[in-house]
Amino acid sequence: MNTASDQKKFNPPAAIDLKKYIRTIKDYPYKGILFYDISTLLRNADAWQIASARMAHGIAAWQPDLIAGIESRGFVSASPLATALGCGMVMIRKPGKLPGKTISIQYNLEYGQNCIHIQEDAVIPGQRVVVIDDLLATGGTLQASIKLLRKIGANVIGAAALIELKNLKGHEKIDVPLFSAITYEK
Amino acid sequence: MNTASDQKKFNPPAAIDLKKYIRTIKDYPYKGILFYDISTLLRNADAWQIASARMAHGIAAWQPDLIAGIESRGFVSASPLATALGCGMVMIRKPGKLPGKTISIQYNLEYGQNCIHIQEDAVIPGQRVVVIDDLLATGGTLQASIKLLRKIGANVIGAAALIELKNLKGHEKIDVPLFSAITYEK
Repeated sequence: MNTASDQKKFNPPAAIDLKKYIRTIKDYPYKGILFYDISTLLRNADAWQIASARMAHGIAAWQPDLIAGIESRGFVSASPLATALGCGMVMIRKPGKLPGKTISIQYNLEYGQNCIHIQEDAVIPGQRVVVIDDLLATGGTLQASIKLLRKIGANVIGAAALIELKNLKGHEKIDVPLFSAITYEK
Repeated sequence: MNTASDQKKFNPPAAIDLKKYIRTIKDYPYKGILFYDISTLLRNADAWQIASARMAHGIAAWQPDLIAGIESRGFVSASPLATALGCGMVMIRKPGKLPGKTISIQYNLEYGQNCIHIQEDAVIPGQRVVVIDDLLATGGTLQASIKLLRKIGANVIGAAALIELKNLKGHEKIDVPLFSAITYEK
C-alpha cells in the first residue's frame, strides 16, 4: 500500500518526446535540405499511437465533418484522424489520380510549380473540413489545399500538420487555426 | 416496456452494404476498365468507420506488429488499422520517395511495369507484418509487396484489401491468408 510519503517519491516519466523517433537525413531530396523522416516514428507502434492521439486531441474541438488529406504522406496522418473523430475522409491528389470531375489549383514551390486536384463533389457545401499534411514547411501546399477546398464549397475550419518547421513561417500563409503535433524552431 | 411479442416484431436493419457507398466509373483510367471509386465511401463518416472496423476485425487475430501500406490509396486503409490495432505502420512507396537506404522490386502490370521501394530498416527481422492495399485486382502489386517485405526480413502473416475483384483471381498470387472487406464476384 502506498503511503502519502511514497506518493511524493513517485516520479513518472515526463511526456514522451516524439522528436526522438524522427530521423533526420541530410541533403534529401535536394542538397542543403535536412529531411525529417517520419518513417521511424510511424513504424514504432507506441510513437505512432501517441502522435495520432495528439493530433486527434488537437483538432477535436473544431468539430470537423471531414478530414482532408494531402497525397501521399498526408493520407497517413489524415486517415486515422477521420476514424478517431467519426469523420469522413477526402483525398487531395496529384494530377491524373482522381476519377470523375475534378478541379485543380497550381502553386509555387521553392523549386518549380506543383498542382493538386480534388473531386468536385468531394464535400457537401458547408461541411466543416480540417486539412492535414505530414509536414508544414513553407506552407504552399497547405495554403493551396485550403483554397481548393473552398472552391468546392468547404467550410475550412482548421489545418494540422504532424511536423511544423516554424522558422520557414508557413503558418503565416494559413488563414485558419493551425495545430502542429511536433514543432521545430529551426 | 417491450413484451415478448413486441420483441418478435422488432426487425433491425441488416448489415450495412458498403457497396452502396462505392461509385463505379466506366473507362477509367483506361477504356474498358470499370473503376471502383472508394472516394464516395471514404467521405461518408459512417461508411468509413464501418469499413475500417471490418478490416481491423478481419486481421486482428493475426496479431500483427506492423501494418504495411502500399502508396498511396493503400496508406488510407493501412494507417487507421495501425492505430486501431496498436501497430506501427510501414510505407511501401514509388521510386524516389523514400530517404535513406531502400530496396526495390519490379513487377509486371497489365500495361507495362511498375516498381516499388521500401526502406531497408523498415522492419526488425521477424516482425509480424500485414500488408494492405485498397484494391486487389490481378494481385501483382500485393504479391510484389510481400516479396519486398520478405527481402528485409519481415514475417508476412497476412494481406488485406478494402476491395477484392474476385474474378481477376489475384488471391491465387497471394501465399498468405487474405482478408477482403468488400468483394465483387465479377
